[in-house]
Amino acid sequence: MTNYSPNSLSEFLAPNSIAIIGASSEPTKRGYQALKALQRDEFQGKVFPIHPREASILNLPTYKSVMDVVADIDLALICTPAKTLPDILLQCGQKKIKGVVILGAGFSEGGESGSKLELEVVSIAKKYNIRIIGPNTSGIFNLHKNMDLVGYTDLQPGGLGVLSQSGNMALTLITEGALNGHVGFSTYVGVGNQSDINFSEYLEYFSRDPNTKVPILYVEGFKDGRRFLDVARKTTQKKPVVIYKAGRTSAGQKSASSHTGALAGSFDLTVGVLRQAGITVVRDADKILPIAETLSLSPPTKGDRIAVLADGGGHATIATDALVEAGLTIAKLNASTRENLAAILPSAASLINPVDVAGGSDSNPGVLADCADILLGDTHIDAVLMVGLFGGYSIRFSPTLKEAELKASERIGTLVNKHNKPIIIQSLYTPMKTEPLERVRELGVPVYASVETAAQCLTALVEYSHSKTRNARSLPRTSDTQMPNSNNIASTALAGGRSSLFEFEALELLKAYEINISTYSVVRSQLDIPAAASRFGEQAVAMKIVSKDILHKSDAGGVMLNVTGKADMRDNYNRVIANAQRFNPDAEIEGVLIAPMASSGVEVIIGVIQDPVFGPVMMFGLGGVFVEILKDVVFRAIPLSNADAEEMLGEINSAKVLQGERGNPPIDRAGLIDLMMKLSTLVQAHPGISEIDLNPIIVRENGYSVVDARIILSTPQNGALKKGSVRGKSVVCKT
Amino acid sequence: MTNYSPNSLSEFLAPNSIAIIGASSEPTKRGYQALKALQRDEFQGKVFPIHPREASILNLPTYKSVMDVVADIDLALICTPAKTLPDILLQCGQKKIKGVVILGAGFSEGGESGSKLELEVVSIAKKYNIRIIGPNTSGIFNLHKNMDLVGYTDLQPGGLGVLSQSGNMALTLITEGALNGHVGFSTYVGVGNQSDINFSEYLEYFSRDPNTKVPILYVEGFKDGRRFLDVARKTTQKKPVVIYKAGRTSAGQKSASSHTGALAGSFDLTVGVLRQAGITVVRDADKILPIAETLSLSPPTKGDRIAVLADGGGHATIATDALVEAGLTIAKLNASTRENLAAILPSAASLINPVDVAGGSDSNPGVLADCADILLGDTHIDAVLMVGLFGGYSIRFSPTLKEAELKASERIGTLVNKHNKPIIIQSLYTPMKTEPLERVRELGVPVYASVETAAQCLTALVEYSHSKTRNARSLPRTSDTQMPNSNNIASTALAGGRSSLFEFEALELLKAYEINISTYSVVRSQLDIPAAASRFGEQAVAMKIVSKDILHKSDAGGVMLNVTGKADMRDNYNRVIANAQRFNPDAEIEGVLIAPMASSGVEVIIGVIQDPVFGPVMMFGLGGVFVEILKDVVFRAIPLSNADAEEMLGEINSAKVLQGERGNPPIDRAGLIDLMMKLSTLVQAHPGISEIDLNPIIVRENGYSVVDARIILSTPQNGALKKGSVRGKSVVCKT
Repeated sequence: MTNYSPNSLSEFLAPNSIAIIGASSEPTKRGYQALKALQRDEFQGKVFPIHPREASILNLPTYKSVMDVVADIDLALICTPAKTLPDILLQCGQKKIKGVVILGAGFSEGGESGSKLELEVVSIAKKYNIRIIGPNTSGIFNLHKNMDLVGYTDLQPGGLGVLSQSGNMALTLITEGALNGHVGFSTYVGVGNQSDINFSEYLEYFSRDPNTKVPILYVEGFKDGRRFLDVARKTTQKKPVVIYKAGRTSAGQKSASSHTGALAGSFDLTVGVLRQAGITVVRDADKILPIAETLSLSPPTKGDRIAVLADGGGHATIATDALVEAGLTIAKLNASTRENLAAILPSAASLINPVDVAGGSDSNPGVLADCADILLGDTHIDAVLMVGLFGGYSIRFSPTLKEAELKASERIGTLVNKHNKPIIIQSLYTPMKTEPLERVRELGVPVYASVETAAQCLTALVEYSHSKTRNARSLPRTSDTQMPNSNNIASTALAGGRSSLFEFEALELLKAYEINISTYSVVRSQLDIPAAASRFGEQAVAMKIVSKDILHKSDAGGVMLNVTGKADMRDNYNRVIANAQRFNPDAEIEGVLIAPMASSGVEVIIGVIQDPVFGPVMMFGLGGVFVEILKDVVFRAIPLSNADAEEMLGEINSAKVLQGERGNPPIDRAGLIDLMMKLSTLVQAHPGISEIDLNPIIVRENGYSVVDARIILSTPQNGALKKGSVRGKSVVCKT
Repeated sequence: MTNYSPNSLSEFLAPNSIAIIGASSEPTKRGYQALKALQRDEFQGKVFPIHPREASILNLPTYKSVMDVVADIDLALICTPAKTLPDILLQCGQKKIKGVVILGAGFSEGGESGSKLELEVVSIAKKYNIRIIGPNTSGIFNLHKNMDLVGYTDLQPGGLGVLSQSGNMALTLITEGALNGHVGFSTYVGVGNQSDINFSEYLEYFSRDPNTKVPILYVEGFKDGRRFLDVARKTTQKKPVVIYKAGRTSAGQKSASSHTGALAGSFDLTVGVLRQAGITVVRDADKILPIAETLSLSPPTKGDRIAVLADGGGHATIATDALVEAGLTIAKLNASTRENLAAILPSAASLINPVDVAGGSDSNPGVLADCADILLGDTHIDAVLMVGLFGGYSIRFSPTLKEAELKASERIGTLVNKHNKPIIIQSLYTPMKTEPLERVRELGVPVYASVETAAQCLTALVEYSHSKTRNARSLPRTSDTQMPNSNNIASTALAGGRSSLFEFEALELLKAYEINISTYSVVRSQLDIPAAASRFGEQAVAMKIVSKDILHKSDAGGVMLNVTGKADMRDNYNRVIANAQRFNPDAEIEGVLIAPMASSGVEVIIGVIQDPVFGPVMMFGLGGVFVEILKDVVFRAIPLSNADAEEMLGEINSAKVLQGERGNPPIDRAGLIDLMMKLSTLVQAHPGISEIDLNPIIVRENGYSVVDARIILSTPQNGALKKGSVRGKSVVCKT
């Protein structure tokens, strides 16, 4: 990434001159198809076919090597086999070609010798400042430059950019786009092995590309997840980003990694950090294009209150179920809205949301436009989903209705701008591409055949609108300022040959970052008991063995609860030490930690891990069965924003436990969020921490108690990467 | 339902003569459209337009009334307004018409006066033995009789029957069918208000109708859920039944009931009992038709082990994720299968499942047919899902491949019969209806554009196959034999003015049905203590107040745990009685229940409720947060089969807790199933029970303890219906 400069990709992704290395006169070859497509599409730049022997291909003069070309070359498409690459790249380097697309397979995706070859190719490229797309890619196109180096058919220029680790998935999107007829594409890049340029840099290019309104990414694995999140967070402030992350089950991951050899992280973690960055994560592959289409067409929503407008009860019910299940709100209509609707609808119509016109539009589809206008004008409504038969009235009811329906299309098309609110239409006549539907789509209103698809598109739009506002308002709290002496704690541990902190050290470190920690004592001998006893008085305390050699304290009989008073404390001290020595006679015993018993409340867990893809990530969940059995946890990348922490509390499935249930008061959300934000700061200041586990934390109506704290440091033995890097695991805490 | 005889519906759903009452010469009127459609479709029977004034309509002679028609009339379509119905039905009765379709609205769906009118109409019909379809229906068609009384267009005859509470949903299915081009319909009935014939009876008709291969039901509410389940259980042994149940969220239910006024029960309960009956419950409306199509075309599967066959990594990964998430198994291929695949595929191909041919079919799509043949021949594989580009090779790669691809279609078409295993194809070229895809569909192979749709269709097929086998093998244990004296318990309670049993009575009743209940004592005074104490010896016991006036025993200080020995027992007896008297000075105290403390294990809850739609239903779940917060419970209608009980244990989200986790042993499944089966028998024998709550039951590796039991009886006050009826709530237990 040393050669990276923000605009460099545009020099070869929107090239003015292209060399086809391995040009061919054989129609099944890529070196032929690319040339043919450039001619077919009337590419305006220069094209140089490279071939060792033939004099001309497709009526273009050929060159034996790029060295023979006199003009500058922006981009080379390399169609020759893997083994030829080192020599070819040397020539490209001498020719000062800016970027190359390497189609061939047989690199890092295919085993050890391939990986070696890929490293060699990348190192030559770096030396000559050549950027590499691929290898092992299906190619690229830029339809706004009339450049298609893949040889797809049915390509329509438009606002969707595509980055894909699967050529067939790109083909699927392009084919769906062609069938849709109203969406087109800007640039496609098959990222292949991401040997040089990876998703982050491509996304940054799309972020700046005025032709791309919505980038779509099909991702099997990220190579630099941390940087990707940073780029995505900035990009989503300008335009929506849609991602389908493949390999979310372990079987799927196996399939994905046999495909590209990239890392596929835990799906829940990936979804958490991507959504945090404002990305629209699509769960079903068949919803990628519809969702990207809606996001590219519709204005953002101010909230999640939807009105359903139906010309029949069945669709009204299905749409309502689908919206509620997606987490949206069925808007409560204003009284004036209901009055206005009543004035134009028959008495059988349902004027509560969903609005069912009950035959009121059968002989005049314009009534639907009137109703939509009324609904969008209601201040309690953020968007309208219209479902049913619109666009097919002349088929279903009478051919005489066609003009009225076309007029209704025109009117509906103006409503989005008039009210600056989105409207989405579901019509069972969508696949027939009827005139009224084609007209309303030309005017920028998304139309879908399926109620569920329409509901999911609307949900994606509401979520994107929400996350854009959230990320604009609530910035991640970045700070790597270390608190005084906090690094000594880690240094002491490492000097003592420990990779995990003693619990009292962990508590000390948390305290240094102003996380609330109850007073505690470490008793190292019987002589310390009187002081500790007078410190805690008649307060009930917990006593826990402190030893680097005893990880599971309870199993060793090393934990005593509800101890009160000096005598009891002395007895239990002796018991804990004796148990520990019996459990492991060689254990080096540091002492016994004494801390007050926490009063009751809701048990939660907050953890930090170093994800190999996304770096430091915070996890939040309820304790007990919620985390152990139900895995009901959520993830966000560190640094967190306040809004991130707030959302984490609301996003777990069992969130309502935190709101107080069965007569319990709600928990101290503000306190918990404060703890999470401070922990985020701590982790940024100490990148050498590889794992934190605060489990449980007992949260009450006011305040919380960290009942058990565990902090693990990176050591050379457990996989240190780069010292001080946020992504890597460094040996010592930052100094 | 008194006139019901199994074959009667066929007399008018497949009529030989039809009267159109309210025939019209106005093209927008239903009385015109129906006549027109009968002529257009060349209906082979007799048609009698009824009109008070006109002499002929559409060149057919009209009659002033059905009384004027000399021939017999099987069916009358009544297009006139609601208020005319009583008179018209009288005439139909005198004419001995077998069935009528009442289109008009303004009956029970529209308030009190409409309900009164509907009752009047039904009572006239009963008197004359006329069966009613509707009222408030969109109509019916029977394409195998060339009869379309709805006036739909694009109708294709075929094997799908449709019962719908929404005319627009029927229209949606029909339109999708026409666009699909390979599915058609047999009979459609818009069930309307189900004033006479309801879903149960229509389904029984479809069960016997040889033209209907798969009935599809769009249901907002059932009127006779218990009978429906019985019919469905029998029907699904013969043919698949597909249901979309609308109104699954409370907002959706509100919308549904404003539409038809039918009862919409809890969705989870509804899904549980429908699936128990072998029904395929479809969650997304846009999957109804694809799933019905697959079920109508494909042979049943023997298991859930799927092979994915792909011509690219992207589709392979997406399909694998979708199948695993749907609960299917990615098959492990036989060694010989891998060898056979290796022999025809390039070395880059992935020979573990998913199988990715890695370009091996690019120049010869026949390779996909070869691979499918090999995979279907593997004894470890129950079905094949082929994903990717098949059907579009001549578009994507070379026009020269068309013949080879058509040949591949022919071969794939033969494989289903050859191996008697299903194959489903996903192709991104599906919407283009390419020749190879059309050919393979003609041969009965389902083809879908979306990977997710294909995966859901396969899942539905696997589930239907499984449930058909399950229901054939494991019959519901029906028995209403009462155990000796068991009814006295209930009688005693009711005679004492109680609608709930004392806990010791509940335990006694459970014991009468051989459910394991620990020895217990009821102590009514201090004098009983010594006997109780000697009975339990040094065993720890629980002591609980018994009083009809104290429902929440713990709140009243009426529960003492871990009591041991006579002295302790006496103290706690006094304390419990004193607490209860302080809590409610007027409470009538029966005594104190003493039972041994249960040793630890997994807490579960088993309950029984009387569902207003489906009658007695058993609920199972884990105790504590699982039921209280997560609502992780499953439902089955009583009587249960052994397989039902077994499935309930496996179907909760937290099922793995029962398998033993965190070092715990698995629980006694057989014991728990035995308990559920005995409870099912008890409930059948005592239909007067309105509610049972065994919560918690502590289940161990061997055996279980019912720690708390609560049984509520129906009383006139809490809504008794018919005495002794399974559906209703009777006043006393059956004698």
